[in-house]
Amino acid sequence: MGRLTGGDPSLLRRINSAVVLHALRDSGSPTLTDLTRLTGLSRPTVEGVVEGLIEAGLVAESVPEEGGARRQGRPARRFRFRVEAGHLLGIEIGPHRVAALVSGLNGRIIGAASREVSETASADDRLDRVRVVIADVLRRTGVSRNNLRAVGVGSPGIVEADGTVRLGVALPGWTGLPLGQRLQRSFRCPVLVENDANAAAVAEHWKGVAKDSDDFVFVLAGLSPGAGSLIGGRLHRGFGGAAGEIGALHLLGRESRPETLLSPTDQALRPLDEHAVAEVFTLAKGGDARAQAAVDRFIQRLVHDVAALVLALDPELVVIGGWAAGLDGLLPPLRSELERYCLRPPQVVLSLLGEAAVATGALRIALDHVEEELFAVEGTASARG
Amino acid sequence: MGRLTGGDPSLLRRINSAVVLHALRDSGSPTLTDLTRLTGLSRPTVEGVVEGLIEAGLVAESVPEEGGARRQGRPARRFRFRVEAGHLLGIEIGPHRVAALVSGLNGRIIGAASREVSETASADDRLDRVRVVIADVLRRTGVSRNNLRAVGVGSPGIVEADGTVRLGVALPGWTGLPLGQRLQRSFRCPVLVENDANAAAVAEHWKGVAKDSDDFVFVLAGLSPGAGSLIGGRLHRGFGGAAGEIGALHLLGRESRPETLLSPTDQALRPLDEHAVAEVFTLAKGGDARAQAAVDRFIQRLVHDVAALVLALDPELVVIGGWAAGLDGLLPPLRSELERYCLRPPQVVLSLLGEAAVATGALRIALDHVEEELFAVEGTASARG
Repeated sequence: MGRLTGGDPSLLRRINSAVVLHALRDSGSPTLTDLTRLTGLSRPTVEGVVEGLIEAGLVAESVPEEGGARRQGRPARRFRFRVEAGHLLGIEIGPHRVAALVSGLNGRIIGAASREVSETASADDRLDRVRVVIADVLRRTGVSRNNLRAVGVGSPGIVEADGTVRLGVALPGWTGLPLGQRLQRSFRCPVLVENDANAAAVAEHWKGVAKDSDDFVFVLAGLSPGAGSLIGGRLHRGFGGAAGEIGALHLLGRESRPETLLSPTDQALRPLDEHAVAEVFTLAKGGDARAQAAVDRFIQRLVHDVAALVLALDPELVVIGGWAAGLDGLLPPLRSELERYCLRPPQVVLSLLGEAAVATGALRIALDHVEEELFAVEGTASARG
Repeated sequence: MGRLTGGDPSLLRRINSAVVLHALRDSGSPTLTDLTRLTGLSRPTVEGVVEGLIEAGLVAESVPEEGGARRQGRPARRFRFRVEAGHLLGIEIGPHRVAALVSGLNGRIIGAASREVSETASADDRLDRVRVVIADVLRRTGVSRNNLRAVGVGSPGIVEADGTVRLGVALPGWTGLPLGQRLQRSFRCPVLVENDANAAAVAEHWKGVAKDSDDFVFVLAGLSPGAGSLIGGRLHRGFGGAAGEIGALHLLGRESRPETLLSPTDQALRPLDEHAVAEVFTLAKGGDARAQAAVDRFIQRLVHDVAALVLALDPELVVIGGWAAGLDGLLPPLRSELERYCLRPPQVVLSLLGEAAVATGALRIALDHVEEELFAVEGTASARG
């Protein structure tokens, strides 16, 4: 308590500013009187803060609605948070596809763009494709690059805090790539890079099937699954950013790689060749016994990987996303096996966001960064919810 | 900030009391002047709080040391935190052994007792044995049962928040046992029940090999391993208290149970029969090829289980405890396999606390509970460190 009374005046201004902005964002078009009531601050303080926020472009006087009830005298001025004061970009860089989403400061998505890309594309070619998609979505939405406040990026691999890909075997040239730094050249705002499964987990918590759960695992089910976990509502990255990289588990038993496992012939599939995989599933559906056996092996392995995550973390919920989420007959064996062998089986559900999950999560990560700047002063954010 | 100015006076008293007690605990024998300086509170407030703490038995005037430098006039009164004002009990209830530790309010262990117990003992018999050990340690230390402030208990199984064992296959009659409630009858203070691996993890963080790590996994390596994890310095129990129960992983692949895996004959070992297991290891050392193969299978499985935990959680450190930690030749394959297959291999070390880990962790859990009551007021504990 002693710390606050002798406080730093600029810190106090920042706290007051964050408090007023928070109230403005959450309450439509309040008057100054509303704001003093909502914040508990004095009227002169609120007036000063609001003036400052208007100068900073974050707040505007709202235009009174037509047709409202007329009152005597001059109506009180009303204010609103300018969601258009800044924009955010969420980018997915995947093996087959790059995608981008744009939103204003309230997180509402106002535009999207995507392109296919070859899984064999070099890092430079892939980044070129990313730039094309970004230019495309900015043009479509009419958002200026200078108006971006933060850019989030979701991509496969273990990502260091500085945005370097420490290990990323899914994409050619990805390991060691200073991805954040490379993308940073195109922007004046911060660029935040996150593992794709982690980004997808954040997305499902924000707008997807895990809205009501603070403890869940998102499984990005491809040939080799990755996972992102929220624990107590926070992304669990792990000590070195590698949490959830469960795909390596099977290497331990000297078992075959997924490409071998899923092949209905004696020849392994090409790495990351999802078309070939889809064919195997189609063959299996058509009654091909060898293809069916391959599919069974694949599902059994996915069940094992998911079980390992569930036993380690004990989440409330498991969300299955990624391309394998679209496969028929995936969920029933997952559910029944987890029920048999996990001491407390979690719910198992499919991703709601589908292929938009990674870019959506990247956007949310960018938004978190900006909200941290605008609304949070250390120690006040959580208390004020 | 508005919340504190209009605050609840009893809350304010509790905050002040916790702050003064904190300062007293951490600073030897301060004077009232020292305490006003350390806490930032006014002298009348400090005097009032100290009087209250003396009445509550938590603080005493300290006797001046002989031979100290003499000064003119009456020396200032000095005060100390009475670590003997309350005591704590940490209990392990295991398959083969029950043990208890006693400490004062500073957590320093002043007494220990333990007894063997059969792995086939009924729940009632096992609890009788626990009562004997408790009576024993209290008698030895001269601590009155009424002076206990909290009791922590570590035991195998998934433990509900109310102290009921939801699932505990390691001990006969354990599943469904209201363990907390049963033990509560013997005490007037709170009884807190925790999974044994979780308790051991807490212990290694407190007094063991993981003092400097906030992100680690403790593996309680027995026939079927369990694990406890600290994430960001906090115990990760999981949504349903089942996090780390990795032993079930192998059931999924329809692989053999540990008792079969470890048998050098066609006959499975008896469940939890560690003597038989130790014999297998001795045979292997003596050059018996079938025994060596059984040991290799066992270690391979443990490596797989630990790898699953590491891939899911990405800890800084893995601590291996439990009886299997004492086996020769366990660490090298664990380290080399994790290095080969984990994207970012953690350090792997042996438990420092050995068989004392579970009871020590249970004691720490009891101490945490009491410190929460004495020192923490919501929102102030972490800020004051």
